[in-house]
Amino acid sequence: MTQNIYDNPQFFAGYATLDRSVKGLDGAPEWPALRQMLPAPQGKQIVDLGCGYGWFCRWAQQQGAAHVLGLDVSEKMLARAREMTPETGITYQQADLETLTLKSESLDLAYSSLALHYLQNIDGLFSVLFQALKPGGKLVFSAEHPIFTAAMKQGWFLEQDGQKIWPVANYQQEGERLSNWFADGVKKQHRKLATWINALIAAGFVIEQLDEWGPDAAQIAANPALGEEKERPMLFLLSAYKPG
Amino acid sequence: MTQNIYDNPQFFAGYATLDRSVKGLDGAPEWPALRQMLPAPQGKQIVDLGCGYGWFCRWAQQQGAAHVLGLDVSEKMLARAREMTPETGITYQQADLETLTLKSESLDLAYSSLALHYLQNIDGLFSVLFQALKPGGKLVFSAEHPIFTAAMKQGWFLEQDGQKIWPVANYQQEGERLSNWFADGVKKQHRKLATWINALIAAGFVIEQLDEWGPDAAQIAANPALGEEKERPMLFLLSAYKPG
Repeated sequence: MTQNIYDNPQFFAGYATLDRSVKGLDGAPEWPALRQMLPAPQGKQIVDLGCGYGWFCRWAQQQGAAHVLGLDVSEKMLARAREMTPETGITYQQADLETLTLKSESLDLAYSSLALHYLQNIDGLFSVLFQALKPGGKLVFSAEHPIFTAAMKQGWFLEQDGQKIWPVANYQQEGERLSNWFADGVKKQHRKLATWINALIAAGFVIEQLDEWGPDAAQIAANPALGEEKERPMLFLLSAYKPG
Repeated sequence: MTQNIYDNPQFFAGYATLDRSVKGLDGAPEWPALRQMLPAPQGKQIVDLGCGYGWFCRWAQQQGAAHVLGLDVSEKMLARAREMTPETGITYQQADLETLTLKSESLDLAYSSLALHYLQNIDGLFSVLFQALKPGGKLVFSAEHPIFTAAMKQGWFLEQDGQKIWPVANYQQEGERLSNWFADGVKKQHRKLATWINALIAAGFVIEQLDEWGPDAAQIAANPALGEEKERPMLFLLSAYKPG
C-alpha cells in the first residue's frame, strides 16, 4: 500500500500553497512540454492517475473529452476536486494505483503527473494500463527524475566558483527515499530511468518520447528561480503507446 | 569531423594499458550485460562502429558471423587490429562515423562500444544505420552516461561521512566536454539520455532495452575498485531494432 501523505494535514496545507496547486496546469512549468505529448482530448476516454485537485481532468473535459476518470489515493484531494468541478463527464474515485483494475480496452489515454514515483511497484500498474488501453492508446506521464531522487541526502552544493552542483550517489540502489517536503518522512521510490523504460517495454508499450525536462530561456527570464533546473533534471516526461 | 584522439601517441600509449585493451572484452565489466543484448552472431552481417583493436570483431567471427566490418577513425588502431587478427571474414576500414555510408538493408547487427559519445552529430549516423539494417536488424551500443559527462569539471566529491558523490551540473547544456584522460583536451559530447533515445526513435528505431550499467556484487568482490560505479552510472547500454 502506497503511503498516503496527501491526507497528512501538514502536507496537505503545504501542498496547497504550490503554484501548481493555486494556478493549476499553468502553474507547472513542465506543462507546455507535457501537453505537447498528449493526443487531442476530443472524444477520448481518459484516466488521470493521481488526479489531485482535478486540474487536468477539468482541462481535458473542457477540451472535449468523452469522459475523464480521476483517481487518487487521497479522499481529501478528491473532496477538493469535486468542490472545484462544475463540469459533467468527470468521475472522481478513490483508488490505490498499486492494486488498480480497469476495464479492458476501454481507454484512449492514461495520464499521470508526478504521482508514479510514490509507487513501490510499477510493473503491475503498467500491465493494467496496457490492457485497459485501446490499440493505439497512449500513456503520458511525468515523475521525479532519478538524478533528483538517487542520493539519500538531496540538496544543492555550491562550488567555490558559484556553480551549483547536484549530488548523485546510490544511483544503482533502487527503493525508498525519505524527504522532508512539507512534512517529515515523505516516502518516494528511486528507480533508474532504465527501470521505468524497461518496465514499459516489458508491459508491451512502445516508447514514443522521453523528455528530461528543463526550463527554456523565456521561462527562466519570467521566473529566475527556475534557473537552477537547468543544472539537473528534476522531472522526466514520457509518452508510450500500445501498438495498434 | 570528429577529433581523432586515438592517433595522439600519448593517448594511444595510455589507452593500451587499460584492462579492456589488454584483456579485450573480458576486461570490460559491462561486457556480460552488453553481450546479453546481442543476437547470436552466427551467420550475421555485422558492423562494429569504433572497433579499436578489433576485439569484438574477432569475438563475433569466432561465434560464426558471416562477415564483420570493423570501422575506426584511427589508422593506428586499425593497424593494431589487423596485426592481432588471424581470422578471415573481418574487414577493417578507416571511416569517420559522422559521414559514413553503408549499403541499404545489408546488415543484421550494428554494434558500438564507447565510441558514439565522441560524435558531434548522431542523427545522421542513426539514419544511416537504420537504412543499412535489414528489417528486424539490431543496433546495440554503449556510450558514456550523461550523468557522467554533464558537469564541466568531472570527479568525485567525498562527503564528511565518507559517502562518495558525483556532481551533476549543466545537464541541459548539451555539447562539448573536455577531459584529461591519458591526454589533455580529449573532446567528448554530452547529450541527455532523452536526446539519444529520441534520436533513435526519430530515425525509425524501436527501443528494446536500456541498461544504466552498474557492477553486481560478484564483480565488486572480485574488483573492489568497481564499487564506486554503484554510486552513479558511467555508461549506458542500449538496444534498438528496425521493425520487420
